[in-house]
This record gives sequence, structure tokens and C-alpha cells, in this order.
Amino acid sequence: MEYLAGQYDVIVIGAGHAGCEAALAAARMGCKTLILTISWDNVALMPCNPAIGGPAKGHLVREIDALGGQMGLTIDATAIQIRMLNTGKGPAVHALRAQADKKKYQQYMIQVLEHQQNLDVRQAMVESIRVEQGQVQGVLTQTGAFFAAPNVVITSGTYLKGRIIIGDLHYPGGPNGYFPSTELAASLRDIGVQLGRFKTGTPARVDGRTVDFTKMVEQPGDEDPLNFSFISPRIERKQISCWLTYTTEETHQIIRDNLHRSPLYAGVIEGTGPRYCPSIEDKVVRFADKKSHQVFVEPEGANTHEMYVQGMSTSLPEDIQLAMLRSIIGMENVKIIRPGYAIEYDYVVPTQLKLSLEHQTIQGLFTAGQVNGTSGYEEAAAQGIIAGINAACRAQGKEPFILKRSDAYIGVLIDDLVTKGTNEPYRMLTSRAEYRLLLRQDNADQRLTQIGRTIGLVDDIRYERFQRKMDRVGQEKELWSKTFVTPGNARLQEILEQKQSSPLTKGLSLFDLLRRPELTFDDLHSLLEYDEAPETVDPEVAEQVEISAKFEGYLVKQQAQVERFNKLESRRLPPDLDYASIGGLSTEARQKLMARRPESLGQASRISGVNPADISILLVYLEQRRRRDNGGNGE
Amino acid sequence: MEYLAGQYDVIVIGAGHAGCEAALAAARMGCKTLILTISWDNVALMPCNPAIGGPAKGHLVREIDALGGQMGLTIDATAIQIRMLNTGKGPAVHALRAQADKKKYQQYMIQVLEHQQNLDVRQAMVESIRVEQGQVQGVLTQTGAFFAAPNVVITSGTYLKGRIIIGDLHYPGGPNGYFPSTELAASLRDIGVQLGRFKTGTPARVDGRTVDFTKMVEQPGDEDPLNFSFISPRIERKQISCWLTYTTEETHQIIRDNLHRSPLYAGVIEGTGPRYCPSIEDKVVRFADKKSHQVFVEPEGANTHEMYVQGMSTSLPEDIQLAMLRSIIGMENVKIIRPGYAIEYDYVVPTQLKLSLEHQTIQGLFTAGQVNGTSGYEEAAAQGIIAGINAACRAQGKEPFILKRSDAYIGVLIDDLVTKGTNEPYRMLTSRAEYRLLLRQDNADQRLTQIGRTIGLVDDIRYERFQRKMDRVGQEKELWSKTFVTPGNARLQEILEQKQSSPLTKGLSLFDLLRRPELTFDDLHSLLEYDEAPETVDPEVAEQVEISAKFEGYLVKQQAQVERFNKLESRRLPPDLDYASIGGLSTEARQKLMARRPESLGQASRISGVNPADISILLVYLEQRRRRDNGGNGE
Ligand SMILES: Cc1cc2nc3c(=O)[nH]c(=O)nc-3n(C[C@H](O)[C@H](O)[C@H](O)COP(=O)(O)OP(=O)(O)OC[C@H]3O[C@@H](n4cnc5c(N)ncnc54)[C@H](O)[C@@H]3O)c2cc1C
Ligand SMILES: Cc1cc2nc3c(=O)[nH]c(=O)nc-3n(C[C@H](O)[C@H](O)[C@H](O)COP(=O)(O)OP(=O)(O)OC[C@H]3O[C@@H](n4cnc5c(N)ncnc54)[C@H](O)[C@@H]3O)c2cc1C
Repeated sequence: MEYLAGQYDVIVIGAGHAGCEAALAAARMGCKTLILTISWDNVALMPCNPAIGGPAKGHLVREIDALGGQMGLTIDATAIQIRMLNTGKGPAVHALRAQADKKKYQQYMIQVLEHQQNLDVRQAMVESIRVEQGQVQGVLTQTGAFFAAPNVVITSGTYLKGRIIIGDLHYPGGPNGYFPSTELAASLRDIGVQLGRFKTGTPARVDGRTVDFTKMVEQPGDEDPLNFSFISPRIERKQISCWLTYTTEETHQIIRDNLHRSPLYAGVIEGTGPRYCPSIEDKVVRFADKKSHQVFVEPEGANTHEMYVQGMSTSLPEDIQLAMLRSIIGMENVKIIRPGYAIEYDYVVPTQLKLSLEHQTIQGLFTAGQVNGTSGYEEAAAQGIIAGINAACRAQGKEPFILKRSDAYIGVLIDDLVTKGTNEPYRMLTSRAEYRLLLRQDNADQRLTQIGRTIGLVDDIRYERFQRKMDRVGQEKELWSKTFVTPGNARLQEILEQKQSSPLTKGLSLFDLLRRPELTFDDLHSLLEYDEAPETVDPEVAEQVEISAKFEGYLVKQQAQVERFNKLESRRLPPDLDYASIGGLSTEARQKLMARRPESLGQASRISGVNPADISILLVYLEQRRRRDNGGNGE
Repeated sequence: MEYLAGQYDVIVIGAGHAGCEAALAAARMGCKTLILTISWDNVALMPCNPAIGGPAKGHLVREIDALGGQMGLTIDATAIQIRMLNTGKGPAVHALRAQADKKKYQQYMIQVLEHQQNLDVRQAMVESIRVEQGQVQGVLTQTGAFFAAPNVVITSGTYLKGRIIIGDLHYPGGPNGYFPSTELAASLRDIGVQLGRFKTGTPARVDGRTVDFTKMVEQPGDEDPLNFSFISPRIERKQISCWLTYTTEETHQIIRDNLHRSPLYAGVIEGTGPRYCPSIEDKVVRFADKKSHQVFVEPEGANTHEMYVQGMSTSLPEDIQLAMLRSIIGMENVKIIRPGYAIEYDYVVPTQLKLSLEHQTIQGLFTAGQVNGTSGYEEAAAQGIIAGINAACRAQGKEPFILKRSDAYIGVLIDDLVTKGTNEPYRMLTSRAEYRLLLRQDNADQRLTQIGRTIGLVDDIRYERFQRKMDRVGQEKELWSKTFVTPGNARLQEILEQKQSSPLTKGLSLFDLLRRPELTFDDLHSLLEYDEAPETVDPEVAEQVEISAKFEGYLVKQQAQVERFNKLESRRLPPDLDYASIGGLSTEARQKLMARRPESLGQASRISGVNPADISILLVYLEQRRRRDNGGNGE
């Protein structure tokens, strides 16, 4: 029997990575918020790899953090290993990556949620979304509780009509042994949400006691690891190693011999899988000439022997999984703790959404995370915080909050999804960002803290810390620019010689000297004279000075591109625009524009099928309309 | 497709409280052991109250510990509160009780299992038990893995054909959101195991932030809490309080008004529930004149706001649950985190079992825990260790290991189940033990450590610690017996006056003086003269001295009863006894004896329907048979 169980400003369905960020954002912005999940034990669960960050994903975490989100703080508090990847390359692709203690990560997040003001937490299986006259009214649970709210954020991950597949075994199920969310999928269809079907997979977990690590390459953590969050304190942590090993010809042979038993090739799986996290059987088929693939063996926590076998995601039957694993170097006697599996699930076709992640036609219905066709915890969390903010903005009568492609990877992610759509689980990659020299992980705070402050998510502690850092960066840059060195400076010339840098022949500022690629901040720092006793400079500050010296030219150039880009972005397309009445548009463009309803000319230009010619027509049309409107008003 | 996934001496299905003890016992006894569970995340889960111990249950934990089991050590390491209950009463009913940090308890147990030598751990849904010619061959999992073993221990708890019920909502499910074990139930039926149906229930969990504790009575932990395990080190722990409150007339009215919506009264539930953990609706109906019932609000962990509401177990619909909770003093604004529910499940009728917990007709099939018709973590663990030991004994060609009713509460529990059966979930109570003055929680080590040592479960550390304690108790008792005091001892007379104990009029030993109820060990201890510098006596040692002084008479008397009892127990009934051929037995007795096959005359005497007259006839018959056998051999 249905009963009214509560009234909220914002309800978040799901407490995965998207749901946690969404709920915390809305509650922290002052909305009366409820978070619902199938089990209060699956909060912030990592059903696949026990790791956060890595290329592009690490950027997302830093951006979430700068906005006042939670993921960075939680992983900092619970990581068992942190490494900065790609340090040999330019700063745009530096990427922080952490191994999580999976259970501790969950516990920490549960504690944060349970202690959050304005946030109620509740275990419940939502079975339907109630919509009246195109406006969300609330949600109904399996046990008859109706929770009323004008704003609902769905973050149902891989649970929607989930189906587990291992070889020829398949049954309805969510990840990690949880129940699937079957009724909710039906309800979404009923209210007119367009759903598609994707699949993803995860490898077996093995018993670390049965792995011979002496045959593998140790992957230790950094000596002096950084944090994800700009405000985490320095944390003393025992870094636990991961291990690198390889598949063998035998592995590939086992797979080829058993492809007929793969549900993928047997047609049992309909959903499309992620190209960038392919199963091992996929890799062996697609790269038939590769003799071996990398495999990383990663601990699932500080106190468990359970280990994740990255690179071996599969839906092959269990006996083949075991044979495959035992053909990997160092895993000859391995024992499985949990088998790998694939999961097929419904997702919400993201081109139905606005850039705020609100549904185009169902007011107050937001979706975020894997349910929008992405893959990955960070991608989920990034959408989560944006959907949470926008649900709160809507509740508070504020304008939607949108990050542009030039603001953040988060902007790229959401624009890609909403504007271009995706026909496979979408993963963030650095190559998807046009302005990646500007969108670095090291400057996420400079890009987003102020924005987060304006929204109301950045608290005083974070804001003051940020301002202090910026002040210090400014002072340091000024000092470097003011400090002139000349060829007569013997100590300097000695340093240059040591560093195999050509001798100085004319005077210049230290800042200009720092532009030389072979010289670092630390090399030249001793040449500075501070007003007060020589201080050690925070590496964060040093990094900013160094990057701005070395990349100033590129940065300026990219900034100019952004300005051009923003011209089209700032040309808003009115939501009521009648594309049918605009002459000259190609048929495809007209159809796409009518369906997608882009919010700006920029967004329109990225819809496939909308060509530069169509954009020109729209530009002209907008200009005429502006003149007419102005004229109309002026007369 | 089926494949051979491994070969073991002992396989344990289930990693609940019974399964953990069973697997650890078998592995520690040197058997190659495998533990299987539906999810590697539900290990040692407490799906109901987050507490271990209490009257009779605390005794079981101590006995498990003395035998070399794990429960005591795990709860000691993870408790957030420990109290000794009933300290105002005699030592037979003193009972240790701990609140557990539920998640930490699980984590700790997982760590112990994963680090246990000889033990493989694996997540798998077992679908069938293979039996050939009455002998277990192994188990087959959902993913096609066949694990071979001649000994299998089933500890499937409440999962067998589990069904969740909340008001008019019901669906197949295990506890706490896990999948039920449906195929296994069918397989058990197929191999001839007789199953019954029971049910149990659990209350809602609430958000501690919405409880007004100022209206409740605080239940703090002990100042200087004891441990469950005889070998746990002293642990510094911040004790967290529980809270006592009451239902109101309004609560009862709400229940009465909504009984028609109770699945119990509407006939939705077929299984029989536990009389000693009744649902609140049961209590209100059965004790209609009671104006209020006690309710304890207990934290589920150190870092969570989630709280358990003891006394409010229910299967009423969620809206009634909420109304009911809000009518309790201090819960006027309470919010639910998880609703309460009932679960119905198949259990194995325990009268099919031998005292070793092996099935009477299926060789190598053991069952233990809630699946045998009990309720409670401690009852489960107690059976688990015995089944594990016996599976190992069988694997190693040793005699079955049986604790008698006079040895331990564990003996009482198993004898009750196997001999008398149960028609509701069986719970341990002190009143079930005839020899409770001997079976105290304080002397579990004296009763069982030597036995555990002989089996091979008690390691050197535990054994030496035990011997040291016994030596100290012996020395101390001797000293008290040797130390004579006389009426001329002014200090003594002063102490007696202070304690309102009558003055000494003739000389006697301090040990004899300690028999006076009003005097304690500590009162008199200062009168002793030690050879070496006066030492502080370990409270454990002092307790034993005091108990043996004060209760010597009763203990001797009860010991004599035990000897009489043992006479009948030692009369073994051969398994092949042809009861049909024994004249004079009542028809009922003959049928019961043929079905149950008791292992001794003592056990036979406790089968309902077997009367003293039948026992006399059996005695005479056994005597004749013995003479005949002896005569036959002698001639
Ligand atoms: C098998 C598997 C393989 C994966 N492989 C990869 C990979 O290769 N690479 C990669 O980057 N990532 C992978 N993922 C990653 C990952 O699951 C997701 O991307 C991430 O967890 C998504 O976060 P989310 O918050 O969107 O959803 P989830 O973390 O799945 O959380 C969903 C939440 O919604 C709740 N929910 C759903 N329906 C309801 C309902 N009706 N009522 C109430 N609550 C509901 C659930 O309880 C849960 O709390 C994989 C996941 C799985 C399960
Ligand atoms: C709703 C509820 C109410 C309860 N109420 C009370 C109460 O009022 N008082 C009280 O004292 N106790 C109560 N209990 C207590 C408690 O559940 C049990 O008594 C105790 O947990 C039993 O321990 P166990 O080891 O026998 O089984 P469980 O702890 O249930 O463990 C069973 C194990 O078997 C595994 N398993 C089952 N089937 C399979 C399979 N096919 N393949 C592989 N693994 C399998 C499961 O994964 C699990 O690990 C309640 C439990 C529930 C769920």
C-alpha cells in the first residue's frame, strides 16, 4: 500500500559514485535531499577495478574536488597506493592514480553521507517515477513509500534491468550480487524516456596467496605521493605495490579455442561493450597478431588477499577463465575467489538531455553516471556533481549550471554525451579535450574553485586555502620576473654548465630563464633573494610558476582559441526555435536540431550531421531575429 | 558446463557464523578445506542484532573459544561495547554481551579466513550436492564448478529457498539483499534430506540523528570490560552506549488496528517463528495486558548513525513500521534507514542427524547453524565448530567428537536438536542446561581447553596460557587453605565488622572463611602472606578461588548428578540394533527409536515418547546381549 513517506527538494536514486556526489552537492547547497539505494551496503561500491584516477579520469577527480565534491577527499583518506602517471610527458597528461581500499572507501563515504546536514539516507528499491503534466512529482518504492519531490536525479549505474552473464549462464542481477532494478526500467519507458542497452564486464578476483609475484614486475607507489584533493592534509600511508605481468601465447590459444563458448560471439549479449575497456577475448580477436597483453595484479584492500586482475575482463565460462588465468606468467597455480562476469543493462540515451543533465521534456528529471551511457567511477561522479548542482539550482529557482568544453573535462564529457551521444559505454580520454593544455589536473583549482564558491559548494576552508595558494603563486612569479641575472653571475653559469644548458650571454629575468626546457624551478631557486629568511617553496606553487614560464606561449595561443570557441557558445539558441521555418537547412540538420534542441550555436555545430553551412544559416537567422526583436522593441 | 574445479577433504557451504567456525576448525586440524559462500562480502554477516553473547549465548561463545574457535577473538577485536550481564545473580548466569561493529566484525573474519593455512575461500552459489551410494561426492556450483570432497558441511543459514516478507510484499530473497539459495534446497530434497519451513524477522534500522536520546536511559558499557576469549589481550576501547526506551499504548494500538495487514495473521507466512525472539506484533497479541515493552536502541558500528531497534522485529508493512516506531518514547521524529522484514526459509529437520551433526543416512553430509533449525549467531557458531571438527575427524579416520550435556552448553544444544527436535527456531537458554552450576562461562576453559588440545585445535599459546592460569588458581587455593586465622586476629575482626559479618569465634582457614556470602576475595586478600612480595592477583584467578569456596557444596552435588547421568550416556546403543525384535517396547518408542537411532541409552531416554519403562527394557536387553556376546566369546 502506498503512503507518503516524505517531501524533499531533491531526491537522488542511487548511491554509487554519481549518486553520492549528486546528493552531497544538493544537500550542501541547502536543499532538503534524500538519497535512496537498493542496499545501504553498496554505497560507493567499486564493482570493477579498485582504483581511482589515471589519464583524464584523474583530471575529472581534481575538477570534482575543486568544485567542492567528495571523491578526491574520500580516495585520499582510503588509498593504499598513489602514483603520478606520465611524469615523463608534458603537464597536460600528468595523471594521478590511486589504488583504493575498496571497503574502506565505502565506509568512508557512508560516514560522509550519514553526517551530511540536509541529507536523509535510506535503503529502498525505487520502482517508479511519478510524472504529471511533464513535471516530476516523486518516486515510489517497492515497499510502498512515496517520496515527493519536484527534482529527481537517477544514478542507477548498471542496475537497470541488469543481466549477469558468465558463459552460457545468465540471470537477472545487478553488479556484485545485488538485485537488478527491473521495475524502474519499465517505469522510465512508461514516462517516455528512451533507453538503450550496453554491457560491461569485469575480470575474476584471485587469491594473492596463489600468485607468484617473483615472476612479475613490481609497481610501487610514489615516494612522496600527492593527494587528489586540493585540501587533503598530508597523509602518512604505507604504499602497497601492484604487479605487472603478461598473457602468453597459451592464453590466446585457450581463448581462440573457446570463442564458441563466449556469450559475446554466441550472440547471448545484445548490449554494446566499452571499446576502451575491452574484454580479453575482444583484445585477442581484435589484435590477433599481438603475442601478449599487459596484466596488472592489484590488491583490493590493505588487509585482504583478494586481488583484481586488470586486463582480463571476460564473460567466458568459469572453467575457461581459470585456464586462461593459469596461463599468465606468475599465475600458474592461481585460485579464483570470484569469477569474472559481464553485465548487460539499460541506459538512458543521453541525447535526450540538456547540458544541465535534465531531461529535455520531463521537467525535474535528471540522470547522471553510468545510466547516461558512460563507464567509470570518475565519469559517474563528474556527472553526479553536475546533476546534483542543477537539481539544487532548479529547486532554488536559479539558472542551470553548465561547464563548457573550455572550462573543464567535465564540460567535455557532458557536451560529448548530450551533443554527440555515444554508441558504446563512453570513457573519458585526454584526446577528447580540445584545450588540454589549459585543462590540466594541476590547475583544476584555478579553473573551478571560484565557480564552486559562487554555487555555494566551496566552503571557507577550501576557499581560503585556494586564495592563499594563488597569492603565493602570484608573489613567487613576481619575484622571479623581478629578479634579473647577468652573464657575470658565476654561480648561475656554474648551474647552467651542470645542467648542460648554454651559458648566459645577456641579462634576463629568472622567469625568462626558466623557460629553458632543461632547467627546473629547483635548479634556479637558490638564485632568488627573498625579503624574509629563505623559505622552501611549496611544490604546488613551484609547479605553477614553472608551467607558466615554460608553456606561456602555448597557453596564450590556446586561450585565443578558447575565445573564438566561446563566440559560438555564447550565441544561445532559444529553446522554442522553430527549425522547420528556417529555410536552407539541410534535412538532416533540421531533424537533428529539432530532436536535440542544442542550447547554443556552438553545441549545434558539434551535432553530427549539422554542417558548417547549416551553422552559417543559423548565424544569419539569429542575427535577423536579434535585429527584428531589437527593432520591434525600439519602435 | 561442469568442470572439476578442485579436490578437498572438507567443503563448507556458507560463510556465516557456522560456516566460518566449521571451515577454520577443519583447516586448523590439517584438512584441505574449501569454504564457499554466495558472496564473499557476506562473510560473518549479522543480518539481525549487532551483538554477540548474552545469557547462555555468552556461554556458547566462551566454549567455542576454549575449544580453539574464532568467534570470541573476533568479537573482542571489533566490539564497541562489552558488558557482563546478571552480575547481581549467581555465577551460573553471569553472561558477557558485546555490541559489535558489524562491518569491522566481517572484515576481521574475512582476514582470518583469507590468512588461514589449508583453507581456500571462494564465492560461489552451490546448486547441488552429489551423493553416490549414500556417500557425499562433492558439490556443484551455478557456474559449473564441481568441487570434489568426501565431507561437506552445509551452513546455509536462512538462505535456503528464502522468501522476504514485508506486509503484503513478498519475493524470493536471502537476508540483507542477497540472493536466496533455491536450487540447493531442491537438491537436498532430491538426495532425501527432510526439510521444514521456519521464519524469523528483524526490525527496521533507524537514523541515530533522528532519535532523542535525552528521553531514553543510557546503557553504558562496563568500566573495565572483560573479553570473550580466554586469550585476547587487554583491549583499549572507547565504549559506546546503547539506549533503553519503551513502547507506548499508542504503539500497541497502532499494531492492533493493523493486524489485518500483518502477513502473519493474514496467512502469508507458513513458517514457524522463534518464540524467544517474537515480533512486536506477536508480543502485543500474546501479552495483551502489557502496557509497554522494552526497546533497546543499539549502534551498528563505531562510525555510523545507523541503529538497530531491538524488540521491534516485525513483518508489518513499512508505513505501519514507521508509525509504530514514531510512537516509541524518544523516537517521535525517527527516520528509517532500512525497513524491518521477515524471512521464511527451509531448514533441515535436525532429528535426522547424529550427535556429530552428520546426516544419519547420507555419509559425509554435515549440517550446522540456522539450517538445523536454530536461531542466533552463537548457536550457529557452536554447531559450526562441532560439524567442522567432525568432518575433519571423518576425513582423518578418527572417531566422532561429541560433547555431552554435562560437558558444555554446546552439548545441550546439539543433544536437544538431534534428540528432541524443535518445532520453532531453537534458541539457547540457561534453563535448558541441567548442570548449569558446572557449565559456567567463567570455567569454559577448564572444561574444554584440554579437549580442544587433544583434537588439535588449541595451539601452544592458548594451551600454555591455560596451564599457567590453572597453576595460579591451584597455588592460590592452596595458600588460602593453608592460611589459618584465629579470633585473636584484630585486623581480621575489623574487616568482618566492616563487612557486617559475624565475628570469628574459632580458628579456621581463610578458604573456609571465604565461604561466607558477604565476604569477597578482595576483602580477605590482604590477610594472606605470600612467599614473595605481595602480588595483585589476576581477577580471573580470584574468581575461581571465590567460586570454589562459596559453591563447593553445590558443585560436588551437581558433579554426583553428572556421574549418574553419565552412566546411561555410556551405555552405547549399537547403530544396527533391531528394535523390532525387542519385545515389550511400546509401539511409539519402537517407531521413534528406529527412526532416530539414538547413540546411547541416555540419548534414547530423552526422546519424547520413549518412557522409563522402555529404557528399563532396553537396559535388560543390552545386558543380555552383552552376556551372550561375552559368553559366546568365552566358550
Ligand atoms: C561488471 C562491471 C564492469 C565494469 N567495468 C568497468 C570498466 O571496464 N571500466 C570502468 O571504468 N568502469 C567499469 N565499471 C564501472 C562502474 O560500475 C561504473 O562506471 C560506476 O560504478 C558507475 O557509477 P554510477 O554511480 O553511475 O553507478 P553505480 O556505482 O552502479 O551505482 C548505482 C546505484 O544506483 C542504485 N540503484 C539502481 N537502481 C535503483 C533503484 N531502482 N532504486 C534505488 N537505487 C537504485 C544502486 O543501488 C547503486 O547505489 C564496471 C562496472 C561493473 C558492474
Ligand atoms: C531476518 C533475520 C532475522 C533474524 N532474527 C534473529 C533473532 O531474532 N534472534 C537471533 O538470535 N538470531 C536471528 N537471526 C540470526 C541469524 O541470522 C542467524 O541465526 C545466524 O546468522 C545464522 O548463522 P548461520 O551461519 O547458520 O547462517 P548465515 O549467517 O545465514 O550464513 C549462511 C551462509 O550460507 C551461505 N549460503 C547459503 N546458501 C548457499 C549456497 N547455495 N551456496 C553457497 N553459499 C550458500 C550464505 O552465503 C551465508 O554465507 C536472524 C536472521 C535474519 C536474516
